[in-house]
Amino acid sequence: MTHIIPPKTAHVFSRVRFIMVQPSHPGNVGAAARAIKTMGFHDLCLVAPRYPDICELPEAHALASGAGDVLSAAALVGTLEEALAPVTLAFALTARARDLGPPPCDIRQAAAASRQHLGAHENGQVAIVLGTERSGLTNEDIARCQRICHIPANPDYSSLNVAQALQLAAWELRYALAVETGLPLLPSTDKASQQAGSEPAANDKVQAFLAHWEQALVAIQFLDPRHPKKLMPRMQHLFARSELSQDEVDMLRGVCTAMIKACR
Amino acid sequence: MTHIIPPKTAHVFSRVRFIMVQPSHPGNVGAAARAIKTMGFHDLCLVAPRYPDICELPEAHALASGAGDVLSAAALVGTLEEALAPVTLAFALTARARDLGPPPCDIRQAAAASRQHLGAHENGQVAIVLGTERSGLTNEDIARCQRICHIPANPDYSSLNVAQALQLAAWELRYALAVETGLPLLPSTDKASQQAGSEPAANDKVQAFLAHWEQALVAIQFLDPRHPKKLMPRMQHLFARSELSQDEVDMLRGVCTAMIKACR
Repeated sequence: MTHIIPPKTAHVFSRVRFIMVQPSHPGNVGAAARAIKTMGFHDLCLVAPRYPDICELPEAHALASGAGDVLSAAALVGTLEEALAPVTLAFALTARARDLGPPPCDIRQAAAASRQHLGAHENGQVAIVLGTERSGLTNEDIARCQRICHIPANPDYSSLNVAQALQLAAWELRYALAVETGLPLLPSTDKASQQAGSEPAANDKVQAFLAHWEQALVAIQFLDPRHPKKLMPRMQHLFARSELSQDEVDMLRGVCTAMIKACR
Repeated sequence: MTHIIPPKTAHVFSRVRFIMVQPSHPGNVGAAARAIKTMGFHDLCLVAPRYPDICELPEAHALASGAGDVLSAAALVGTLEEALAPVTLAFALTARARDLGPPPCDIRQAAAASRQHLGAHENGQVAIVLGTERSGLTNEDIARCQRICHIPANPDYSSLNVAQALQLAAWELRYALAVETGLPLLPSTDKASQQAGSEPAANDKVQAFLAHWEQALVAIQFLDPRHPKKLMPRMQHLFARSELSQDEVDMLRGVCTAMIKACR
Protein backbone atom coordinates (compact mmCIF):
# COMPACT_ATOMS: atom_id res chain seq x y z
CA MET A 1 0.00 0.00 0.00
CA THR A 2 1.78 3.12 -1.13
CA HIS A 3 -1.00 5.51 -0.27
CA ILE A 4 -0.28 7.02 3.10
CA ILE A 5 -3.08 9.13 4.28
CA PRO A 6 -2.69 10.89 7.54
CA PRO A 7 -4.31 10.62 10.93
CA LYS A 8 -7.80 10.47 12.27
CA THR A 9 -8.99 7.01 11.51
CA ALA A 10 -12.18 7.68 13.39
CA HIS A 11 -12.78 10.69 11.21
CA VAL A 12 -12.41 8.68 8.01
CA PHE A 13 -14.75 5.98 9.30
CA SER A 14 -17.33 8.66 10.11
CA ARG A 15 -17.41 9.62 6.44
CA VAL A 16 -18.90 6.30 5.38
CA ARG A 17 -22.67 5.85 5.34
CA PHE A 18 -24.68 2.69 4.88
CA ILE A 19 -28.07 3.26 3.28
CA MET A 20 -30.86 0.66 3.29
CA VAL A 21 -33.68 1.44 0.86
CA GLN A 22 -37.17 0.40 2.04
CA PRO A 23 -36.09 -2.28 4.50
CA SER A 24 -39.04 -4.38 5.63
CA HIS A 25 -37.54 -6.82 8.16
CA PRO A 26 -36.58 -5.32 11.54
CA GLY A 27 -34.17 -8.24 12.04
CA ASN A 28 -32.20 -7.22 8.97
CA VAL A 29 -31.95 -3.65 10.19
CA GLY A 30 -30.69 -4.87 13.57
CA ALA A 31 -28.16 -7.20 11.94
CA ALA A 32 -27.03 -4.33 9.74
CA ALA A 33 -26.43 -2.12 12.78
CA ARG A 34 -24.34 -4.87 14.33
CA ALA A 35 -22.32 -5.40 11.16
CA ILE A 36 -21.68 -1.67 10.86
CA LYS A 37 -20.49 -1.32 14.43
CA THR A 38 -18.39 -4.47 14.32
CA MET A 39 -16.41 -2.96 11.48
CA GLY A 40 -15.96 0.39 13.24
CA PHE A 41 -18.60 2.46 11.42
CA HIS A 42 -21.73 4.01 12.85
CA ASP A 43 -23.72 5.85 10.17
CA LEU A 44 -26.84 3.90 9.20
CA CYS A 45 -29.56 5.57 7.14
CA LEU A 46 -32.95 4.05 6.35
CA VAL A 47 -35.01 5.21 3.39
CA ALA A 48 -38.77 4.81 3.82
CA PRO A 49 -38.70 1.69 5.98
CA ARG A 50 -41.84 -0.44 6.03
CA TYR A 51 -42.48 0.48 9.67
CA PRO A 52 -41.63 4.01 10.82
CA ASP A 53 -40.57 2.61 14.20
CA ILE A 54 -38.56 -0.26 12.66
CA CYS A 55 -35.51 0.58 14.80
CA GLU A 56 -37.47 0.23 18.00
CA LEU A 57 -39.00 -3.16 17.25
CA PRO A 58 -37.85 -6.04 19.45
CA GLU A 59 -36.44 -8.10 16.59
CA ALA A 60 -34.27 -5.19 15.48
CA HIS A 61 -32.87 -4.82 18.98
CA ALA A 62 -32.36 -8.54 19.41
CA LEU A 63 -30.26 -8.81 16.27
CA ALA A 64 -28.40 -5.55 16.88
CA SER A 65 -26.94 -7.24 19.95
CA GLY A 66 -24.65 -4.61 21.48
CA ALA A 67 -25.12 -2.18 18.60
CA GLY A 68 -28.29 -0.54 19.93
CA ASP A 69 -26.53 2.81 19.78
CA VAL A 70 -26.12 2.56 15.99
CA LEU A 71 -29.76 1.54 15.70
CA SER A 72 -31.01 4.41 17.85
CA ALA A 73 -28.93 6.93 15.97
CA ALA A 74 -30.02 5.68 12.53
CA ALA A 75 -31.27 8.44 10.24
CA LEU A 76 -34.77 7.94 8.80
CA VAL A 77 -35.53 9.74 5.57
CA GLY A 78 -38.26 9.61 2.98
CA THR A 79 -36.25 9.34 -0.22
CA LEU A 80 -32.90 8.08 -1.44
CA GLU A 81 -32.21 11.61 -2.63
CA GLU A 82 -32.31 12.84 0.97
CA ALA A 83 -30.14 9.96 2.15
CA LEU A 84 -27.54 10.80 -0.45
CA ALA A 85 -27.60 14.54 0.18
CA PRO A 86 -24.21 14.78 1.96
CA VAL A 87 -22.65 11.95 -0.03
CA THR A 88 -19.96 12.55 -2.65
CA LEU A 89 -19.45 8.98 -3.90
CA ALA A 90 -22.25 6.43 -3.73
CA PHE A 91 -22.04 2.77 -4.63
CA ALA A 92 -25.23 0.88 -5.48
CA LEU A 93 -24.73 -2.68 -4.21
CA THR A 94 -26.59 -4.96 -6.59
CA ALA A 95 -26.83 -8.66 -7.24
CA ARG A 96 -26.25 -8.58 -10.94
CA ALA A 97 -25.00 -6.40 -13.75
CA ARG A 98 -27.40 -4.07 -15.47
CA ASP A 99 -27.54 -3.09 -19.08
CA LEU A 100 -27.61 0.52 -18.24
CA GLY A 101 -26.12 2.43 -15.38
CA PRO A 102 -22.89 3.52 -13.79
CA PRO A 103 -19.70 1.52 -14.30
CA PRO A 104 -19.63 -1.69 -12.25
CA CYS A 105 -16.93 -3.00 -9.94
CA ASP A 106 -16.76 -5.54 -7.15
CA ILE A 107 -16.89 -4.60 -3.47
CA ARG A 108 -13.13 -4.83 -3.04
CA GLN A 109 -12.61 -2.40 -5.88
CA ALA A 110 -15.34 -0.22 -4.41
CA ALA A 111 -13.51 -0.19 -1.08
CA ALA A 112 -10.26 0.78 -2.78
CA ALA A 113 -12.01 3.56 -4.70
CA SER A 114 -13.59 4.75 -1.44
CA ARG A 115 -10.22 4.89 0.27
CA GLN A 116 -8.82 6.92 -2.58
CA HIS A 117 -11.82 9.24 -2.60
CA LEU A 118 -11.80 9.85 1.15
CA GLY A 119 -8.07 10.39 1.12
CA ALA A 120 -8.18 12.85 -1.71
CA HIS A 121 -11.16 14.82 -0.47
CA GLU A 122 -11.22 15.93 3.09
CA ASN A 123 -14.95 16.52 2.98
CA GLY A 124 -15.70 13.54 0.79
CA GLN A 125 -18.36 11.15 1.98
CA VAL A 126 -18.93 7.64 0.71
CA ALA A 127 -22.14 5.62 0.77
CA ILE A 128 -23.03 2.00 0.16
CA VAL A 129 -26.64 1.72 -0.97
CA LEU A 130 -28.55 -1.52 -0.46
CA GLY A 131 -31.94 -2.36 -1.93
CA THR A 132 -35.02 -4.03 -0.55
CA GLU A 133 -34.92 -7.64 0.56
CA ARG A 134 -37.27 -8.67 -2.20
CA SER A 135 -36.52 -6.64 -5.28
CA GLY A 136 -33.20 -4.92 -4.77
CA LEU A 137 -32.69 -1.42 -6.10
CA THR A 138 -34.74 0.13 -8.87
CA ASN A 139 -33.06 1.52 -11.95
CA GLU A 140 -33.98 4.95 -10.70
CA ASP A 141 -32.19 4.32 -7.38
CA ILE A 142 -29.14 3.04 -9.17
CA ALA A 143 -29.05 6.04 -11.43
CA ARG A 144 -28.63 8.23 -8.34
CA CYS A 145 -25.35 6.49 -7.49
CA GLN A 146 -21.97 7.16 -9.06
CA ARG A 147 -21.04 3.49 -9.25
CA ILE A 148 -22.50 0.00 -9.17
CA CYS A 149 -20.80 -2.66 -7.14
CA HIS A 150 -21.29 -6.42 -6.90
CA ILE A 151 -20.45 -9.25 -4.59
CA PRO A 152 -19.20 -11.98 -6.92
CA ALA A 153 -20.82 -14.91 -5.11
CA ASN A 154 -21.50 -18.44 -6.36
CA PRO A 155 -23.48 -17.93 -9.59
CA ASP A 156 -25.49 -21.08 -8.87
CA TYR A 157 -26.52 -19.94 -5.42
CA SER A 158 -25.99 -16.28 -4.70
CA SER A 159 -28.31 -16.26 -1.74
CA LEU A 160 -26.85 -13.46 0.35
CA ASN A 161 -29.39 -11.48 2.27
CA VAL A 162 -29.14 -7.73 2.65
CA ALA A 163 -27.53 -7.90 6.10
CA GLN A 164 -24.89 -10.35 4.94
CA ALA A 165 -24.14 -8.25 1.88
CA LEU A 166 -23.78 -5.22 4.11
CA GLN A 167 -21.49 -7.21 6.42
CA LEU A 168 -19.15 -8.03 3.54
CA ALA A 169 -19.17 -4.46 2.26
CA ALA A 170 -18.41 -3.09 5.73
CA TRP A 171 -15.55 -5.55 6.12
CA GLU A 172 -14.06 -4.57 2.77
CA LEU A 173 -14.28 -0.89 3.66
CA ARG A 174 -12.74 -1.47 7.06
CA TYR A 175 -9.87 -3.40 5.55
CA ALA A 176 -9.24 -0.77 2.89
CA LEU A 177 -9.52 2.21 5.22
CA ALA A 178 -7.58 0.70 8.07
CA VAL A 179 -4.69 -0.13 5.78
CA GLU A 180 -4.72 3.37 4.42
CA THR A 181 -4.81 5.08 7.74
CA GLY A 182 -2.21 2.80 9.27
CA LEU A 183 -4.61 1.39 11.83
CA PRO A 184 -3.01 -1.81 13.05
CA LEU A 185 -4.93 -4.68 11.48
CA LEU A 186 -3.50 -7.39 13.64
CA PRO A 187 -3.88 -7.45 17.38
CA SER A 188 -0.56 -6.51 18.86
CA THR A 189 1.44 -9.59 19.61
CA ASP A 190 1.56 -10.37 23.26
CA LYS A 191 4.54 -9.17 25.22
CA ALA A 192 5.09 -12.75 26.28
CA SER A 193 5.95 -13.74 22.74
CA GLN A 194 8.63 -11.06 22.64
CA GLN A 195 10.56 -12.36 25.61
CA ALA A 196 14.24 -13.00 25.14
CA GLY A 197 14.11 -16.74 24.46
CA SER A 198 11.41 -16.47 21.85
CA GLU A 199 13.56 -14.21 19.73
CA PRO A 200 14.61 -15.92 16.52
CA ALA A 201 17.82 -17.85 16.92
CA ALA A 202 20.89 -16.50 15.18
CA ASN A 203 22.17 -18.58 12.31
CA ASP A 204 25.29 -19.72 14.15
CA LYS A 205 23.14 -21.15 16.94
CA VAL A 206 21.07 -23.09 14.42
CA GLN A 207 24.20 -24.44 12.76
CA ALA A 208 25.65 -25.46 16.12
CA PHE A 209 22.42 -27.32 16.88
CA LEU A 210 22.56 -29.09 13.50
CA ALA A 211 26.13 -30.25 14.20
CA HIS A 212 24.98 -31.58 17.57
CA TRP A 213 21.93 -33.22 15.93
CA GLU A 214 24.22 -34.95 13.46
CA GLN A 215 26.31 -36.41 16.31
CA ALA A 216 23.13 -37.61 18.01
CA LEU A 217 21.85 -39.24 14.82
CA VAL A 218 25.18 -41.03 14.48
CA ALA A 219 25.00 -42.13 18.13
CA ILE A 220 21.60 -43.74 17.68
CA GLN A 221 22.86 -45.32 14.45
CA PHE A 222 20.30 -43.60 12.29
CA LEU A 223 23.01 -41.81 10.35
CA ASP A 224 25.90 -43.85 8.99
CA PRO A 225 28.82 -41.41 8.65
CA ARG A 226 30.29 -43.57 5.88
CA HIS A 227 27.08 -43.32 3.87
CA PRO A 228 25.44 -40.09 4.94
CA LYS A 229 23.35 -39.78 1.78
CA LYS A 230 21.32 -36.57 1.70
CA LEU A 231 20.22 -36.83 5.29
CA MET A 232 21.87 -33.75 6.76
CA PRO A 233 21.00 -31.43 3.87
CA ARG A 234 17.40 -32.49 4.32
CA MET A 235 17.54 -31.82 8.06
CA GLN A 236 19.10 -28.45 7.32
CA HIS A 237 16.30 -27.66 4.91
CA LEU A 238 13.66 -28.63 7.46
CA PHE A 239 15.05 -26.73 10.43
CA ALA A 240 16.18 -23.69 8.46
CA ARG A 241 12.69 -22.88 7.25
CA SER A 242 11.15 -23.41 10.69
CA GLU A 243 12.59 -20.13 11.94
CA LEU A 244 13.59 -21.62 15.26
CA SER A 245 13.56 -19.44 18.35
CA GLN A 246 16.51 -19.51 20.73
CA ASP A 247 14.29 -21.35 23.24
CA GLU A 248 13.58 -24.04 20.71
CA VAL A 249 17.23 -24.41 19.83
CA ASP A 250 17.99 -24.90 23.52
CA MET A 251 15.22 -27.48 23.80
CA LEU A 252 16.42 -29.41 20.76
CA ARG A 253 20.02 -29.36 22.01
CA GLY A 254 18.69 -30.94 25.20
CA VAL A 255 17.21 -33.70 23.06
CA CYS A 256 20.59 -34.23 21.35
CA THR A 257 22.40 -34.51 24.69
CA ALA A 258 19.85 -37.02 25.97
CA MET A 259 20.11 -39.09 22.77
CA ILE A 260 23.89 -39.34 23.04
CA LYS A 261 23.75 -40.11 26.75
CA ALA A 262 21.15 -42.84 26.22
CA CYS A 263 23.52 -44.68 23.88
CA ARG A 264 26.43 -44.86 26.24
CA MET B 1 -16.56 -8.36 -14.33
CA THR B 2 -13.69 -9.14 -16.65
CA HIS B 3 -12.22 -11.87 -14.51
CA ILE B 4 -11.90 -15.25 -16.11
CA ILE B 5 -12.39 -18.08 -13.68
CA PRO B 6 -9.95 -20.85 -14.42
CA PRO B 7 -11.26 -24.27 -15.38
CA LYS B 8 -9.95 -26.00 -12.28
CA THR B 9 -11.87 -23.69 -9.97
CA ALA B 10 -14.45 -26.24 -8.92
CA HIS B 11 -11.70 -28.68 -8.05
CA VAL B 12 -9.83 -26.12 -6.00
CA PHE B 13 -12.98 -25.17 -4.10
CA SER B 14 -13.49 -28.81 -3.18
CA ARG B 15 -10.15 -28.73 -1.39
CA VAL B 16 -11.32 -26.23 1.23
CA ARG B 17 -12.99 -27.48 4.40
CA PHE B 18 -14.81 -25.46 7.06
CA ILE B 19 -14.62 -27.01 10.51
CA MET B 20 -16.86 -25.94 13.39
CA VAL B 21 -15.72 -27.22 16.78
CA GLN B 22 -18.53 -28.10 19.20
CA PRO B 23 -21.24 -25.93 17.66
CA SER B 24 -24.22 -25.66 19.97
CA HIS B 25 -26.73 -23.54 18.01
CA PRO B 26 -28.44 -25.26 15.08
CA GLY B 27 -29.13 -21.83 13.58
CA ASN B 28 -25.42 -21.09 13.37
CA VAL B 29 -24.76 -24.39 11.63
CA GLY B 30 -27.50 -23.63 9.12
CA ALA B 31 -26.19 -20.12 8.52
CA ALA B 32 -22.69 -21.57 8.08
CA ALA B 33 -23.97 -23.97 5.42
CA ARG B 34 -25.57 -21.09 3.59
CA ALA B 35 -22.41 -18.97 3.79
CA ILE B 36 -20.32 -21.86 2.51
CA LYS B 37 -22.58 -22.54 -0.45
CA THR B 38 -22.99 -18.88 -1.30
CA MET B 39 -19.25 -18.65 -1.75
CA GLY B 40 -19.06 -21.79 -3.88
CA PHE B 41 -17.73 -24.24 -1.30
CA HIS B 42 -19.46 -27.32 0.08
CA ASP B 43 -17.31 -29.10 2.66
CA LEU B 44 -18.63 -28.50 6.19
CA CYS B 45 -17.34 -30.61 9.06
CA LEU B 46 -18.73 -30.53 12.61
CA VAL B 47 -16.67 -31.69 15.56
CA ALA B 48 -18.71 -33.05 18.47
CA PRO B 49 -21.79 -30.86 18.01
CA ARG B 50 -24.02 -30.36 21.03
CA TYR B 51 -26.81 -32.37 19.39
CA PRO B 52 -25.88 -35.35 17.22
CA ASP B 53 -28.79 -34.51 14.89
CA ILE B 54 -27.96 -30.78 14.80
CA CYS B 55 -28.09 -30.73 10.98
CA GLU B 56 -31.63 -32.08 10.95
CA LEU B 57 -33.09 -29.61 13.44
CA PRO B 58 -35.66 -27.17 12.04
CA GLU B 59 -33.66 -24.06 12.93
CA ALA B 60 -30.63 -25.35 11.06
CA HIS B 61 -32.74 -25.96 7.97
CA ALA B 62 -34.49 -22.62 8.25
CA LEU B 63 -31.21 -20.69 8.30
CA ALA B 64 -29.55 -22.87 5.67
CA SER B 65 -32.18 -21.56 3.27
CA GLY B 66 -31.35 -23.21 -0.06
CA ALA B 67 -28.17 -24.81 1.27
CA GLY B 68 -29.80 -27.91 2.72
CA ASP B 69 -27.54 -30.04 0.56
CA VAL B 70 -24.41 -28.71 2.29
CA LEU B 71 -26.09 -29.31 5.65
CA SER B 72 -27.10 -32.88 4.80
CA ALA B 73 -23.64 -33.69 3.51
CA ALA B 74 -21.85 -32.22 6.55
CA ALA B 75 -19.31 -34.59 8.09
CA LEU B 76 -19.76 -35.28 11.79
CA VAL B 77 -16.68 -36.38 13.71
CA GLY B 78 -15.75 -36.79 17.34
CA THR B 79 -12.46 -34.91 17.48
CA LEU B 80 -10.67 -32.08 15.74
CA GLU B 81 -7.91 -34.54 14.95
CA GLU B 82 -10.33 -36.56 12.80
CA ALA B 83 -11.62 -33.43 11.12
CA LEU B 84 -8.08 -32.41 10.21
CA ALA B 85 -6.94 -35.86 9.09
CA PRO B 86 -6.88 -35.09 5.33
CA VAL B 87 -5.91 -31.44 5.78
CA THR B 88 -2.46 -30.12 4.88
CA LEU B 89 -2.83 -26.49 5.93
CA ALA B 90 -5.21 -25.52 8.73
CA PHE B 91 -6.00 -22.01 9.96
CA ALA B 92 -7.40 -21.52 13.45
CA LEU B 93 -9.75 -18.55 13.27
CA THR B 94 -9.50 -16.78 16.63
CA ALA B 95 -10.55 -13.51 18.14
CA ARG B 96 -7.25 -12.53 19.65
CA ALA B 97 -3.54 -13.23 19.68
CA ARG B 98 -2.16 -15.98 21.90
CA ASP B 99 1.11 -16.30 23.73
CA LEU B 100 1.96 -19.60 22.23
CA GLY B 101 0.87 -20.92 18.92
CA PRO B 102 1.38 -20.77 15.22
CA PRO B 103 2.21 -17.46 13.53
CA PRO B 104 -0.81 -15.15 13.17
CA CYS B 105 -2.16 -13.45 10.08
CA ASP B 106 -5.44 -11.86 9.08
CA ILE B 107 -8.06 -13.66 6.99
CA ARG B 108 -7.02 -11.94 3.79
CA GLN B 109 -3.45 -13.11 4.27
CA ALA B 110 -4.79 -16.55 5.15
CA ALA B 111 -6.74 -16.62 1.90
CA ALA B 112 -3.65 -15.63 -0.07
CA ALA B 113 -1.59 -18.32 1.66
CA SER B 114 -4.34 -20.84 0.91
CA ARG B 115 -4.35 -19.94 -2.76
CA GLN B 116 -0.60 -20.40 -2.88
CA HIS B 117 -0.74 -23.70 -1.03
CA LEU B 118 -3.54 -25.15 -3.16
CA GLY B 119 -1.83 -23.97 -6.32
CA ALA B 120 1.52 -25.45 -5.37
CA HIS B 121 0.22 -28.78 -4.08
CA GLU B 122 -2.24 -30.68 -6.19
CA ASN B 123 -3.32 -32.78 -3.21
CA GLY B 124 -3.17 -29.96 -0.72
CA GLN B 125 -6.24 -29.38 1.39
CA VAL B 126 -6.96 -26.25 3.40
CA ALA B 127 -9.18 -25.89 6.46
CA ILE B 128 -10.62 -22.98 8.40
CA VAL B 129 -11.27 -24.01 12.00
CA LEU B 130 -13.84 -22.11 14.07
CA GLY B 131 -14.39 -22.49 17.80
CA THR B 132 -17.46 -22.69 19.97
CA GLU B 133 -19.89 -19.81 20.16
CA ARG B 134 -19.06 -19.21 23.77
CA SER B 135 -15.39 -19.87 24.33
CA GLY B 136 -13.70 -20.11 20.94
CA LEU B 137 -10.89 -22.58 20.38
CA THR B 138 -8.78 -24.13 23.12
CA ASN B 139 -5.01 -23.82 23.02
CA GLU B 140 -4.90 -27.52 22.24
CA ASP B 141 -7.16 -27.04 19.21
CA ILE B 142 -5.04 -24.16 18.01
CA ALA B 143 -1.86 -26.15 18.37
CA ARG B 144 -3.22 -28.67 15.87
CA CYS B 145 -3.35 -25.95 13.20
CA GLN B 146 -0.44 -24.66 11.16
CA ARG B 147 -1.53 -21.03 11.39
CA ILE B 148 -3.70 -18.68 13.40
CA CYS B 149 -5.83 -16.13 11.62
CA HIS B 150 -7.84 -13.16 12.83
CA ILE B 151 -10.60 -10.92 11.63
CA PRO B 152 -9.38 -7.46 12.54
CA ALA B 153 -12.74 -6.04 13.61
CA ASN B 154 -13.52 -2.97 15.70
CA PRO B 155 -11.49 -3.47 18.90
CA ASP B 156 -14.23 -1.76 20.92
CA TYR B 157 -16.96 -4.04 19.61
CA SER B 158 -15.76 -7.15 17.89
CA SER B 159 -19.08 -8.88 18.18
CA LEU B 160 -18.97 -11.23 15.21
CA ASN B 161 -20.69 -14.51 15.75
CA VAL B 162 -19.29 -17.74 14.43
CA ALA B 163 -21.51 -17.78 11.33
CA GLN B 164 -20.55 -14.22 10.42
CA ALA B 165 -16.89 -14.97 10.93
CA LEU B 166 -17.25 -17.99 8.68
CA GLN B 167 -19.04 -15.86 6.11
CA LEU B 168 -16.14 -13.42 5.96
CA ALA B 169 -13.57 -16.21 5.77
CA ALA B 170 -15.49 -17.94 2.97
CA TRP B 171 -15.73 -14.66 1.08
CA GLU B 172 -11.99 -14.02 1.40
CA LEU B 173 -11.22 -17.53 0.19
CA ARG B 174 -13.59 -17.20 -2.74
CA TYR B 175 -12.10 -13.89 -3.72
CA ALA B 176 -8.56 -15.19 -3.47
CA LEU B 177 -9.23 -18.46 -5.27
CA ALA B 178 -11.52 -17.33 -8.05
CA VAL B 179 -11.97 -13.64 -8.44
CA GLU B 180 -8.77 -11.89 -7.58
CA THR B 181 -6.29 -13.94 -9.49
CA GLY B 182 -8.31 -14.33 -12.65
CA LEU B 183 -5.51 -16.66 -13.56
CA PRO B 184 -5.08 -20.37 -13.21
CA LEU B 185 -3.65 -21.61 -9.97
CA LEU B 186 -0.20 -22.24 -11.24
CA PRO B 187 1.60 -25.31 -10.11
CA SER B 188 4.77 -24.53 -8.25
CA THR B 189 7.68 -23.78 -10.55
CA ASP B 190 9.89 -25.72 -8.20
CA LYS B 191 10.09 -29.15 -9.83
CA ALA B 192 11.59 -30.67 -6.72
CA SER B 193 8.54 -29.81 -4.68
CA GLN B 194 6.31 -31.71 -7.06
CA GLN B 195 7.80 -35.10 -6.37
CA ALA B 196 5.44 -37.45 -4.63
CA GLY B 197 7.03 -37.47 -1.18
CA SER B 198 7.53 -33.74 -1.07
CA GLU B 199 3.81 -33.15 -0.99
CA PRO B 200 2.76 -31.65 2.33
CA ALA B 201 2.00 -34.24 4.96
CA ALA B 202 -1.62 -34.60 6.01
CA ASN B 203 -2.37 -33.63 9.56
CA ASP B 204 -2.93 -37.20 10.77
CA LYS B 205 0.58 -38.13 9.62
CA VAL B 206 2.09 -35.22 11.51
CA GLN B 207 0.15 -36.12 14.65
CA ALA B 208 1.24 -39.74 14.36
CA PHE B 209 4.85 -38.57 14.09
CA LEU B 210 4.44 -36.38 17.18
CA ALA B 211 3.07 -39.33 19.17
CA HIS B 212 6.07 -41.39 18.04
CA TRP B 213 8.42 -38.51 18.87
CA GLU B 214 6.96 -38.35 22.37
CA GLN B 215 7.66 -42.06 22.90
CA ALA B 216 11.21 -41.58 21.68
CA LEU B 217 11.78 -38.62 24.01
CA VAL B 218 10.52 -40.74 26.92
CA ALA B 219 12.81 -43.59 25.83
CA ILE B 220 15.92 -41.41 25.91
CA GLN B 221 14.74 -39.99 29.25
CA PHE B 222 14.51 -36.45 27.96
CA LEU B 223 10.79 -36.35 28.67
CA ASP B 224 9.59 -37.45 32.09
CA PRO B 225 6.00 -38.59 31.60
CA ARG B 226 5.24 -37.75 35.24
CA HIS B 227 6.44 -34.18 34.76
CA PRO B 228 5.92 -33.42 31.09
CA LYS B 229 5.84 -29.64 31.58
CA LYS B 230 5.18 -27.78 28.32
CA LEU B 231 7.51 -29.92 26.29
CA MET B 232 5.08 -31.56 23.89
CA PRO B 233 3.03 -28.40 23.23
CA ARG B 234 6.29 -26.70 22.33
CA MET B 235 7.28 -29.56 20.03
CA GLN B 236 3.79 -29.46 18.48
CA HIS B 237 4.20 -25.74 17.93
CA LEU B 238 7.58 -26.18 16.29
CA PHE B 239 6.66 -29.01 13.94
CA ALA B 240 3.14 -27.79 13.12
CA ARG B 241 4.40 -24.53 11.67
CA SER B 242 7.18 -26.22 9.70
CA GLU B 243 4.65 -27.57 7.17
CA LEU B 244 6.42 -30.92 7.01
CA SER B 245 6.42 -32.86 3.77
CA GLN B 246 5.53 -36.56 3.79
CA ASP B 247 9.20 -37.33 3.06
CA GLU B 248 10.28 -35.40 6.10
CA VAL B 249 7.70 -37.10 8.31
CA ASP B 250 9.04 -40.47 7.13
CA MET B 251 12.60 -39.35 7.84
CA LEU B 252 11.73 -38.12 11.33
CA ARG B 253 9.83 -41.33 12.11
CA GLY B 254 12.99 -43.18 11.17
CA VAL B 255 14.82 -41.09 13.79
CA CYS B 256 12.17 -41.98 16.40
CA THR B 257 12.50 -45.69 15.66
CA ALA B 258 16.29 -45.52 15.93
CA MET B 259 16.09 -43.59 19.21
CA ILE B 260 13.81 -46.18 20.78
CA LYS B 261 15.90 -49.07 19.46
CA ALA B 262 19.13 -47.49 20.78
CA CYS B 263 17.72 -47.50 24.31
CA ARG B 264 16.85 -51.17 24.43
